[in-house]
Amino acid sequence: MISGKIIDLTAEIYDRAPTMPMDPKCSVMEHCNLDTLGYNLTRLTISTHQGTHVDAPFHFFYDGQTIDKIDLSRYIVRAVKADLTYKKPKEAIMVADLLKYEHFIDKGLSLLIHTGWDKKMDQKEFFSDSPYISVELAKWFAQKKVKLIGMDVPCPNISDWTIIHQTLLGNSVLIVEGLVNMEEIGDQEFTFIALPLKIRGRDGSPVRAIAVMDK
Amino acid sequence: MISGKIIDLTAEIYDRAPTMPMDPKCSVMEHCNLDTLGYNLTRLTISTHQGTHVDAPFHFFYDGQTIDKIDLSRYIVRAVKADLTYKKPKEAIMVADLLKYEHFIDKGLSLLIHTGWDKKMDQKEFFSDSPYISVELAKWFAQKKVKLIGMDVPCPNISDWTIIHQTLLGNSVLIVEGLVNMEEIGDQEFTFIALPLKIRGRDGSPVRAIAVMDK
Repeated sequence: MISGKIIDLTAEIYDRAPTMPMDPKCSVMEHCNLDTLGYNLTRLTISTHQGTHVDAPFHFFYDGQTIDKIDLSRYIVRAVKADLTYKKPKEAIMVADLLKYEHFIDKGLSLLIHTGWDKKMDQKEFFSDSPYISVELAKWFAQKKVKLIGMDVPCPNISDWTIIHQTLLGNSVLIVEGLVNMEEIGDQEFTFIALPLKIRGRDGSPVRAIAVMDK
Repeated sequence: MISGKIIDLTAEIYDRAPTMPMDPKCSVMEHCNLDTLGYNLTRLTISTHQGTHVDAPFHFFYDGQTIDKIDLSRYIVRAVKADLTYKKPKEAIMVADLLKYEHFIDKGLSLLIHTGWDKKMDQKEFFSDSPYISVELAKWFAQKKVKLIGMDVPCPNISDWTIIHQTLLGNSVLIVEGLVNMEEIGDQEFTFIALPLKIRGRDGSPVRAIAVMDK
């Protein structure tokens, strides 16, 4: 049973919400309302990687697991936050930055990487200039068999995105991108929940991501 | 912390998945793939009330709470399943049918109403002929201040839908519609999770709905 404080780590979905330049644009459109058909109802057009979302291995592998096939227990995990708010724009996050959290990883916890970059979501550089996961760090996460990595950046690495995604997703390290509000989480362990929509045979899903603090 | 068995109560989202006749049609379309842009990515067009979904009070009240404003603790609740699989097509579900479960309601549990109607999801009568919540039952739920009602029918009542929705949503009884697979839940209490996407200012959201059984 869950009963602790819930912290919402999810970016809002709204008409023309920011997206990666080549991604489908977000549209939130009224389909009908109380005066036309007797109820308010909405048509949503959205990328599977809009805002706060999870990646499935199929995102980077034709034979990778699709989002509907991943065991749901993978999206309800014990986690801890890594404070990397000292990282500058376009700065690499290295293994050395995470050594302080190695003991949490070694006991099986997932990791949310807090850079504070989500505060730039409405700015042009949000998608191009974030701190980023280095290739050595992705390999380290894979070698450590981390279950899930969450980030408050829109993409783990904007230059080496193929190798980073393949290293993580190809080694069963699940990725949650576009988280927000991690400053509300303290240093203690918590339960992280980010359940994807059950989209048949595809590559990812927007999610409602939350931290449930222990009582 | 959550650690029990997870039962997935969610209908699949796929291209041309069934919808209510007047609702936006569901489209799941490849936007790019590994050969075109180097990754698989999807554009999803979906009603806020597609398949397994939650209703916000704004669905039936212009001044009702919108889906992004509802306290998230409302979507992580202790619940029990009510077995109503004996109900026939187009048959009303009355207060008398639920009296067996009144003691659960009185101690604050939410209720998932299992009719088995989800097995007809691919048939034409799915949207027109389901067993339905009677007006007297909706009023009883409201008077009992039930936190959340989940159902495996697409709409709680296809004739009196306005009064039913207004009675429930207007009295802070949240509604989850289009659940599936309730036969996998036994008689014991469980934790029900159905977190909506954070869609700004709108009326509902598709969800991944699950039951987490106690260990």
